[in-house]
Amino acid sequence: MKVAIIMGSSSDYEIAQKAFPLLEKFNIPYFVRVISAHRALEMLQECVSEFEQENVKCVIALAGKAAHLPGVVAGMTVLPVIGVPIKGSAFLGLDSLMSIVQMPKGVPVATVAVDAADNAAILAAQILAINSNDITQKLKVYKQELAEHVVQQDKEINTI
Amino acid sequence: MKVAIIMGSSSDYEIAQKAFPLLEKFNIPYFVRVISAHRALEMLQECVSEFEQENVKCVIALAGKAAHLPGVVAGMTVLPVIGVPIKGSAFLGLDSLMSIVQMPKGVPVATVAVDAADNAAILAAQILAINSNDITQKLKVYKQELAEHVVQQDKEINTI
Amino acid sequence: MKVAIIMGSSSDYEIAQKAFPLLEKFNIPYFVRVISAHRALEMLQECVSEFEQENVKCVIALAGKAAHLPGVVAGMTVLPVIGVPIKGSAFLGLDSLMSIVQMPKGVPVATVAVDAADNAAILAAQILAINSNDITQKLKVYKQELAEHVVQQDKEINTI
Amino acid sequence: MKVAIIMGSSSDYEIAQKAFPLLEKFNIPYFVRVISAHRALEMLQECVSEFEQENVKCVIALAGKAAHLPGVVAGMTVLPVIGVPIKGSAFLGLDSLMSIVQMPKGVPVATVAVDAADNAAILAAQILAINSNDITQKLKVYKQELAEHVVQQDKEINTI
Amino acid sequence: MKVAIIMGSSSDYEIAQKAFPLLEKFNIPYFVRVISAHRALEMLQECVSEFEQENVKCVIALAGKAAHLPGVVAGMTVLPVIGVPIKGSAFLGLDSLMSIVQMPKGVPVATVAVDAADNAAILAAQILAINSNDITQKLKVYKQELAEHVVQQDKEINTI
Amino acid sequence: MKVAIIMGSSSDYEIAQKAFPLLEKFNIPYFVRVISAHRALEMLQECVSEFEQENVKCVIALAGKAAHLPGVVAGMTVLPVIGVPIKGSAFLGLDSLMSIVQMPKGVPVATVAVDAADNAAILAAQILAINSNDITQKLKVYKQELAEHVVQQDKEINTI
Amino acid sequence: MKVAIIMGSSSDYEIAQKAFPLLEKFNIPYFVRVISAHRALEMLQECVSEFEQENVKCVIALAGKAAHLPGVVAGMTVLPVIGVPIKGSAFLGLDSLMSIVQMPKGVPVATVAVDAADNAAILAAQILAINSNDITQKLKVYKQELAEHVVQQDKEINTI
Amino acid sequence: MKVAIIMGSSSDYEIAQKAFPLLEKFNIPYFVRVISAHRALEMLQECVSEFEQENVKCVIALAGKAAHLPGVVAGMTVLPVIGVPIKGSAFLGLDSLMSIVQMPKGVPVATVAVDAADNAAILAAQILAINSNDITQKLKVYKQELAEHVVQQDKEINTI
Repeated sequence: MKVAIIMGSSSDYEIAQKAFPLLEKFNIPYFVRVISAHRALEMLQECVSEFEQENVKCVIALAGKAAHLPGVVAGMTVLPVIGVPIKGSAFLGLDSLMSIVQMPKGVPVATVAVDAADNAAILAAQILAINSNDITQKLKVYKQELAEHVVQQDKEINTI
Repeated sequence: MKVAIIMGSSSDYEIAQKAFPLLEKFNIPYFVRVISAHRALEMLQECVSEFEQENVKCVIALAGKAAHLPGVVAGMTVLPVIGVPIKGSAFLGLDSLMSIVQMPKGVPVATVAVDAADNAAILAAQILAINSNDITQKLKVYKQELAEHVVQQDKEINTI
Repeated sequence: MKVAIIMGSSSDYEIAQKAFPLLEKFNIPYFVRVISAHRALEMLQECVSEFEQENVKCVIALAGKAAHLPGVVAGMTVLPVIGVPIKGSAFLGLDSLMSIVQMPKGVPVATVAVDAADNAAILAAQILAINSNDITQKLKVYKQELAEHVVQQDKEINTI
Repeated sequence: MKVAIIMGSSSDYEIAQKAFPLLEKFNIPYFVRVISAHRALEMLQECVSEFEQENVKCVIALAGKAAHLPGVVAGMTVLPVIGVPIKGSAFLGLDSLMSIVQMPKGVPVATVAVDAADNAAILAAQILAINSNDITQKLKVYKQELAEHVVQQDKEINTI
Repeated sequence: MKVAIIMGSSSDYEIAQKAFPLLEKFNIPYFVRVISAHRALEMLQECVSEFEQENVKCVIALAGKAAHLPGVVAGMTVLPVIGVPIKGSAFLGLDSLMSIVQMPKGVPVATVAVDAADNAAILAAQILAINSNDITQKLKVYKQELAEHVVQQDKEINTI
Repeated sequence: MKVAIIMGSSSDYEIAQKAFPLLEKFNIPYFVRVISAHRALEMLQECVSEFEQENVKCVIALAGKAAHLPGVVAGMTVLPVIGVPIKGSAFLGLDSLMSIVQMPKGVPVATVAVDAADNAAILAAQILAINSNDITQKLKVYKQELAEHVVQQDKEINTI
Repeated sequence: MKVAIIMGSSSDYEIAQKAFPLLEKFNIPYFVRVISAHRALEMLQECVSEFEQENVKCVIALAGKAAHLPGVVAGMTVLPVIGVPIKGSAFLGLDSLMSIVQMPKGVPVATVAVDAADNAAILAAQILAINSNDITQKLKVYKQELAEHVVQQDKEINTI
Repeated sequence: MKVAIIMGSSSDYEIAQKAFPLLEKFNIPYFVRVISAHRALEMLQECVSEFEQENVKCVIALAGKAAHLPGVVAGMTVLPVIGVPIKGSAFLGLDSLMSIVQMPKGVPVATVAVDAADNAAILAAQILAINSNDITQKLKVYKQELAEHVVQQDKEINTI
């Protein structure tokens, strides 16, 4: 089981990188591609058509502005597609959020917060965990780490 | 494998219903609960704690206004949680969209369009399909039906 | 010279119709198609690939919500693509406006006002007029009619 | 009588600090905790369950993005909960404002301006003053100081 | 202990009424006034100046559009002022929410959701409960009723 | 001294009418014109060029959507121009408000609330009152009437 | 004839200064005050009550966030009040624009663009020009200077 | 065939420059003017009236804030007018986008993304290509270059 990470432009790479350590933490193989829905549609079709044989089980697609990439990929596959709106535009990412989340009936995109490629990776892990006790266990450990991190922060600040 | 559908108030039931025929189409068992994160938190904790033994694999949570339910459930489980923002408020669902999608690091919610419980059901099917060739096949058939429906609409309107 | 009118769903037909009488007024042949970028991408590719031999010179694409159709078509052709955001969603058309107008570098969409298929038709005529004195003359007459219509309204209301 | 200040992450501490000198000015004891509604819900329940015996009379909760903490605390207690939306996100705090103020019937959160932990402290003092002539007097003095500060600013700028 | 309910115009009365049954449920005396900050400022000053001798302990102020009433009252008193933004304007209440919640340092208004006079009443009760075991008990009972109402809704819809 | 009321389309007439009784109340002569900045610019220039000899002292301009009329008139004259944004569009008048109020340096438009032709008339009266004790007196009487109207509303609702 | 410039806080002084050279250019006397509607209401009432004897004919009021100052002053006087929304807040001045422009019937504020104290000064001059041929002439000269400045800019850039 | 580039102020020049290399790439002659619709309307009329004899076939108009220039030019000519909203204002370009795209019936402006003068140039080329096989060929080459640029970016990042 693999995760495909696709972005529309190499300018989205900095945000995309937030996904890598989390996927590695959950021991999930992934690959990264730069393919634009507007500038290289056939390359995108070819890429998506190979997902099945490459054992891709979940797609993370990042895009800014009029962010069509996640939705176009979602139209090409029955795999779950996670959309990450990128902030880098005049409208602070509201344009990309709207362009990703407001998909028409039949073609959902699982949208996460603006610039939240880290959460996209966690969501991908939660999805792959449907079929993997190992990832499920790792996610439970991660959830405990999150709680312990809060406890740690609380200890440093708690004034009681 | 089951899907849990949770809403914060019975006023969200009308939207929630849009999910039922699609889950049935994909032969996915589901159950429906009304549990508020603000008014019945312990009931929610009990409900979520039973997901594992009930073989729940994905959660659909609907909420309007300051829509905390999907995020609070996501904090309680490692299962993927799909959030459906409900429009029924002064701000046309922008408040619930913001409250659902902008989750902090570590606790993603897979957000779909405002009132799009139907797309939440399809996304749930795509997620469960990770572990089910049967659902995968049904999703591929559904995608063909979508395309054929477009062909049909085109035939009625096409002026060529 | 022909104009292609494409919409993502037959629910956009009511708005699309506002373009017809104006194109007819300017004596511009057109055809109408329902083709979704998300649900029938290959049908869209085939349709666009035939534009050259069909002598299509300008495309009007209408779409609502996460309105990807105009941008995806713009990615497929060097013809000018006019995008009409459709209002019919929770966010009053702000989502479709953002999804259409905020295109990335290299792939512009000529965006008009929400639901303004009539203005899309006029813009199409202005574009085709580059190569047609006849349309240019008709546009000048139309501009005079607009002015005379204002004079007429003023006569009815003017209290001087 | 004590005030509890809770934030979802130590990154909110800088804003939270704006409350401290004001609570001290009004001689109101307070303590500070970092507890996330999403990452440490049981810790939050334990914390809130001890409010009564610790003589907490008012809660200030700060959170950013999909800011659920104030609302979730409000669901756990009958004490008045003051919510402070934190700006630090793509949407300038509009997301956290919406997530805090738009609470459903039965579970209000007393919302103040974005990043306004200082005003949260003053509001907490106004609430505790219900039961304290001393705080009431201090608030009246503070109101005079505010007016005198305006007089002072006016003297420096007034060009008459 | 009394609650003063002030609205800027009798057109806000329909929303204001949502507060009455809740204040009555908690056995809290209240009175209702129509006084505009813009059209009757001296009347407002006189009204607020009498709060102390009338034993008013909390103010609920409702206003729409450029909603100045809550903030102006907050400038006149050290009592806690709860602001209720009214939706009835072009901008769906966003203008009144902004005008009420974004108060400058020193003069907070405890803002609740758009049109949420019911939640304003509950917040007023929570504030008065600082000094009343009776109201505290009634609030605890009310919280249980809210939970039971959820249980009841769940029973009707629950499909398990 | 006269007020000119200009609107871009007869569809704005219903809102414009709200100005008439108020101007009549203050005994201010006015005339009404329908002239579009986009469709009849020369007619607009001619109209504005006659303002001086017609003793026009203030202009009220109403427009919706991309509301250019008030700003274009302001560019043509040194008279104060009052702009009234009209709501009748997809974006609830936010587009017309932005198009009217955000004028560049050198060419202000005195903007009032969405659809507030009544307030435009009062503002016009306040401006003309600079040069008329009679209008000043009428405005003072009007202000008293506003206060008395509040007193009347208060009497009907006041529960004390 | 004088112009009064009032701001709610000395932090608005930097923007207010943009008005000074323009008022001086039109030879219009003015004075500047810092008076808060929330923190020094009686001082504001006293200030406004002296406008008549000080021959003030127009007021410029600047305020940020929940910007009540212009509207409260407009409630106290029949003089025209020009409101300048200040940007300095989380919401980029949208909160102050909404709080200033959306005034209720009977109490208009002549609103200019965010931070546009310069345009407020020009609008004040246009208003005072009702009663001054000298200011009218100066405004006509200023309009020519604006046009000449454009011609100058065009000369530097014009590539013809 | 020529393109006219008009901006309202020399402060828009930095953005306008993004159009130049693209027009040069497509071998399209152009000239650049600074002319304000508000401050130099007659100069604008003169400029536009000469378009026909100068063989201008398409206009690119840039403007910020209450961006009237593109719409006013569109009212003066039957040539296609491309509008570029400029970001440089409090509202991040939302005001200029609204002011440009929401044109009334009869007078469309072909709107591109905020600050997207580069895409305006490409759109102008697409329009002129109606009448030029040479530009059409150059656009096809440009589209290939875009695709190759994506391939290049993909090669650098692709982790497969």
